[in-house]
Amino acid sequence: MRKTFSREDILSMDKNYRVNFMNSVGGFKSANLIGTLSSAGRENLAVFNSVLHIGANPPFLGFISRPHTTERHTLENILDNGFFTINHINRDIYEQAHKTANRYPRDISEFEAVELHPEYIEGFEAPYVKESIIKIGLKLADKIDIKLNGTILVIGSVVKLILEEKLIAEDGYIDLHAADTVAVASLDAYHFSNKLKRLNYAKPDDSDV
Amino acid sequence: MRKTFSREDILSMDKNYRVNFMNSVGGFKSANLIGTLSSAGRENLAVFNSVLHIGANPPFLGFISRPHTTERHTLENILDNGFFTINHINRDIYEQAHKTANRYPRDISEFEAVELHPEYIEGFEAPYVKESIIKIGLKLADKIDIKLNGTILVIGSVVKLILEEKLIAEDGYIDLHAADTVAVASLDAYHFSNKLKRLNYAKPDDSDV
Repeated sequence: MRKTFSREDILSMDKNYRVNFMNSVGGFKSANLIGTLSSAGRENLAVFNSVLHIGANPPFLGFISRPHTTERHTLENILDNGFFTINHINRDIYEQAHKTANRYPRDISEFEAVELHPEYIEGFEAPYVKESIIKIGLKLADKIDIKLNGTILVIGSVVKLILEEKLIAEDGYIDLHAADTVAVASLDAYHFSNKLKRLNYAKPDDSDV
Repeated sequence: MRKTFSREDILSMDKNYRVNFMNSVGGFKSANLIGTLSSAGRENLAVFNSVLHIGANPPFLGFISRPHTTERHTLENILDNGFFTINHINRDIYEQAHKTANRYPRDISEFEAVELHPEYIEGFEAPYVKESIIKIGLKLADKIDIKLNGTILVIGSVVKLILEEKLIAEDGYIDLHAADTVAVASLDAYHFSNKLKRLNYAKPDDSDV
């Protein structure tokens, strides 16, 4: 049976029901861990489902941070020291990765709490996740306030990207299935992929921005 | 073999290689068709991989539009008449959906060109995709220019959402696997899902914005 929901129907849903519903309805999302360092040098690691492509040339990725009305360690650390890492969640670590969404006090590192390991690259001031197969180091490039609801689009410029060379096809495509990367539906339903088909990209001439 | 790419390595890639590479590296993305009407009443349909959750209360979804330096029918139509639909791409229609990325002249409807069917709901001025199982009608709420590279974050307020009732779990979670919804890697690699597990969401208390 088909059902139609108006804006009012959504507004009158129970809060947790609405959160699950609205977080499912846009489709599958990326599943990443964002690693940061506080100005005091404390490590932070948090799961994010909102990483998105902003541009290829120059290379930018972004993510949406929830409103800065409560302690947001990831956002605060990025604003403080300007660096962060985006680390793909794979099948081996998705349960640990998900636990980073628990609230830990600021002096507890999620790396220790969930038993993942930080990894540092010389000259880059944020921790990568050792267990992650595709990982990206970024420098804060812009922070855009979304006035409608107080969320924030954080954009980083890619500085140092690490992955397995064998995952890269001749034309630059990275095989996320072979990398064991997972996707997420709603806030907590993790999925592994089955590749259907790679189609030809129809208009490569204008998408390099 | 692990390989590290600096910003300079990425900037010096061949353009198409970089496009494929940078569009893969953030992880899996949603696969949706956006339906619009021009001010002259012409239908337009285009595939987008950048639909994202902006908020649950009130309900907002967004997507990234490439720079407005060339004809962008989707963006122009939304700015002209204020309405659009987001329609999940499923296994039955992904090859047709992908073809909407071809460049058609303005007087050709992609619906006809790829053999998908428009569907209208009374009082809502944009076409839904009949073949899509989860589809969302939205009203333009904000347009945010990303000055770094000229891309645009378009945000819509959910007005009229249509889906199969049986896909909705007791707690509001929508089963995207059962809906046959696909995900995409890079620009053209379509994937179907294998559900791994639904974990408990760790902190439902602050995510309703």
